[in-house]
Amino acid sequence: MFSQGIIVAPASATGGAIAVIRISGEGCIALCDKVFRGRKPLSEAATHTLHYGNIVDDNRVIDDVLVSVFHAPHSYTGEQSVEISTHGSRYIVSTIISLICRQGARLAEPGEFSARAFAAGRIDLSQAEAVADIIAADSQAAHIVASTQMRGGYSDTLNNLRDRLIELTSLLELELDFGEEDVVFADRSRLQQMLTATIDVVSQLKNSFHTGNAIRNGVGVAIIGAPNVGKSTLLNRLVGEQRAMVSDIAGTTRDTIEESVVIDGIRFRFIDTAGIRTTDDTLEKMGIERTIAAVKKAQIVVSMAEPTGGFERVELSENQTLIRVVNKTDTTQERNFTDAIYISARENMGIDTLRAALRESVDTTAVYRGEAVVSNLRHYEALSAAYAALTSAQTALANNISTELLSEDIRVAINHIGEITGSITSDTILQSIFSSFCIGK
Amino acid sequence: MFSQGIIVAPASATGGAIAVIRISGEGCIALCDKVFRGRKPLSEAATHTLHYGNIVDDNRVIDDVLVSVFHAPHSYTGEQSVEISTHGSRYIVSTIISLICRQGARLAEPGEFSARAFAAGRIDLSQAEAVADIIAADSQAAHIVASTQMRGGYSDTLNNLRDRLIELTSLLELELDFGEEDVVFADRSRLQQMLTATIDVVSQLKNSFHTGNAIRNGVGVAIIGAPNVGKSTLLNRLVGEQRAMVSDIAGTTRDTIEESVVIDGIRFRFIDTAGIRTTDDTLEKMGIERTIAAVKKAQIVVSMAEPTGGFERVELSENQTLIRVVNKTDTTQERNFTDAIYISARENMGIDTLRAALRESVDTTAVYRGEAVVSNLRHYEALSAAYAALTSAQTALANNISTELLSEDIRVAINHIGEITGSITSDTILQSIFSSFCIGK
Repeated sequence: MFSQGIIVAPASATGGAIAVIRISGEGCIALCDKVFRGRKPLSEAATHTLHYGNIVDDNRVIDDVLVSVFHAPHSYTGEQSVEISTHGSRYIVSTIISLICRQGARLAEPGEFSARAFAAGRIDLSQAEAVADIIAADSQAAHIVASTQMRGGYSDTLNNLRDRLIELTSLLELELDFGEEDVVFADRSRLQQMLTATIDVVSQLKNSFHTGNAIRNGVGVAIIGAPNVGKSTLLNRLVGEQRAMVSDIAGTTRDTIEESVVIDGIRFRFIDTAGIRTTDDTLEKMGIERTIAAVKKAQIVVSMAEPTGGFERVELSENQTLIRVVNKTDTTQERNFTDAIYISARENMGIDTLRAALRESVDTTAVYRGEAVVSNLRHYEALSAAYAALTSAQTALANNISTELLSEDIRVAINHIGEITGSITSDTILQSIFSSFCIGK
Repeated sequence: MFSQGIIVAPASATGGAIAVIRISGEGCIALCDKVFRGRKPLSEAATHTLHYGNIVDDNRVIDDVLVSVFHAPHSYTGEQSVEISTHGSRYIVSTIISLICRQGARLAEPGEFSARAFAAGRIDLSQAEAVADIIAADSQAAHIVASTQMRGGYSDTLNNLRDRLIELTSLLELELDFGEEDVVFADRSRLQQMLTATIDVVSQLKNSFHTGNAIRNGVGVAIIGAPNVGKSTLLNRLVGEQRAMVSDIAGTTRDTIEESVVIDGIRFRFIDTAGIRTTDDTLEKMGIERTIAAVKKAQIVVSMAEPTGGFERVELSENQTLIRVVNKTDTTQERNFTDAIYISARENMGIDTLRAALRESVDTTAVYRGEAVVSNLRHYEALSAAYAALTSAQTALANNISTELLSEDIRVAINHIGEITGSITSDTILQSIFSSFCIGK
């Protein structure tokens, strides 16, 4: 898929005290010796050892560095590898990388280190993708989902599924071989049973995408309600404290966390909050269209009302949760709704109850149990296609359709499952997946 | 200065494939063993070895990591140290850091690793400051200046200077001891000679700040000229290509490089370029005030004129360079000025000549020879104070003023030189210097 040779890339972001440059490929240790001056050559170093020295260009010292040496196959890529830990300067990193390229290495393509790990059979495709997810994970639940996937728990589930489907086909193939003799070999009811059990597993995995995707990208929350009901006060109350806290941490980009909040390990993202803020100002202008659009994108809809007012009418789809909130309860004793949470956004009353309700509306039992949870759209699509093929097989089986067609349906399902782990994925698809990774990954 | 104990901090920026966490202090290896699961405990590991394993919180795996082990005194701080290389996720880094803090470490203050290296006598103060400079260096010359300082070349120069001054005082003290007996021990003309030679060295160092500062922060260039003479076209021409090139590199902040350009290892910063751009639009509005302000801040003034026009009047200070440029030379054959560079910014004519002129106006001989070049304002101020004390001593010597006062002047100079390397710097000053560093440095 990718060409061979020694590859080099920055592996850490620059801007800290130190930066890391990653080099991989047969001969890369000897290559580094051409630019490294330490107590002894790196070629004489044992695997998993660290060496202090200078990176030099002719006689000019570029930097004092620490070099890590990894012998094949005990590295991320499975190849001979080197990591150079430099001072965290962009100038130094780019100078060393071009120096190493001048010795015969080339700049790695995005995702090429992971692609090599995949090619060497050290990780499957879903694990490689999880590496990207784990780096992006910004809440405990998102981290657990990616981590389970990266460490192979997810792959095991898929491989089991595949084995079951292969068993099914081999039973069917057996029947096909004897088909002409009119012997129905496989017990159709047993097949039916096996198929149903497998469909259940696929269906469960497929459905876990609802939670997995929400956890990975943040659970979308739409706050709706009449103008002046206190939507933006509530939003400030929910994200306010954390915003202040987070902005203390150096390097945190405010924009990305501005309108989201982590509650008990789950990130909640407030949808179209710019709209929320303006709605309060510009009153009803375009309020209805905005509400409809926000509701569509949300997993949770928080519908707000005044103590004496009513809730907006809202149509929810199957997977959406509605939380009704009555605001401004500090101004009155009226409690007209039994299914609502009573709060005062201004006086910080009832906010913890609302937070708990948001948190409870996301079922993370499977996540925290370390079960396989689908969080990747590509996987979801493959599972959906497998599901469709298997239900088609199920119908065929029920209607006594020929074993040949049945067998074909199941083979289609096997291929779709195989796409997820990369066992039957085409080079083009692999290339497109890995190239979406960062450089150095 | 800083309190003891085990300190931990992120050492790399997050956002890349991997991130590094740095831990230092007696007992930190055993502390890490409480959260590390690998093939064997880190406490049994030799220095400068790498260990693959998991960081766990109870039984939950936070990440697959590579841990580097350093025994005292063979680490940056001189203490027992550990570096944990994790996936480059902010969530993972902050989770591991708080986990380690729960085992008894504390978050490092900014600059605390370097402060410990200083306290252990591994680097002096000017070297510690150079670590910060080397990370910030974004051109070859800036890197060389910081690198020479970090690797101790600069400290050697200062220590030599200090030794010479101490020799001077001891000669004077000798005379003081015998002063009552009216014996003038030290040969005053020899003292005069030694003092003059030392003043020369201090003066040279002090004056190198002009170049050093310009190299470190970028050489300030003001482009001045009448409206519509083509200032912003020239600016675009000078920075345009590099801007396009740099913005291809992921992670480059466009803002910081927008109006600067590296020519042959030197960064040139275009001053008040926002002003330049508007001047062309809003014509003469506030043009004069802007020009005066820009010229004041510049090391180089590029004065532009039309082929048929004249140059603006401009008063330069001693250290400033004037480059006269005639633009729009594609429209005419007129060549009225002998000392000007003829260009066409629009047609990309003569731009290389201008670039060369900019580059030549910065004398980097000393820098590239690896000589000590002062680039730090604090050092410059200390050298200026030392210079003042020494010239006062020189005058005293010439006027046969008492040895006692002379000796006092020289002691003052020694103290100022000592401030640079930190040998006599107060805890308060040290604390303020180190606290300006990043966390993890």
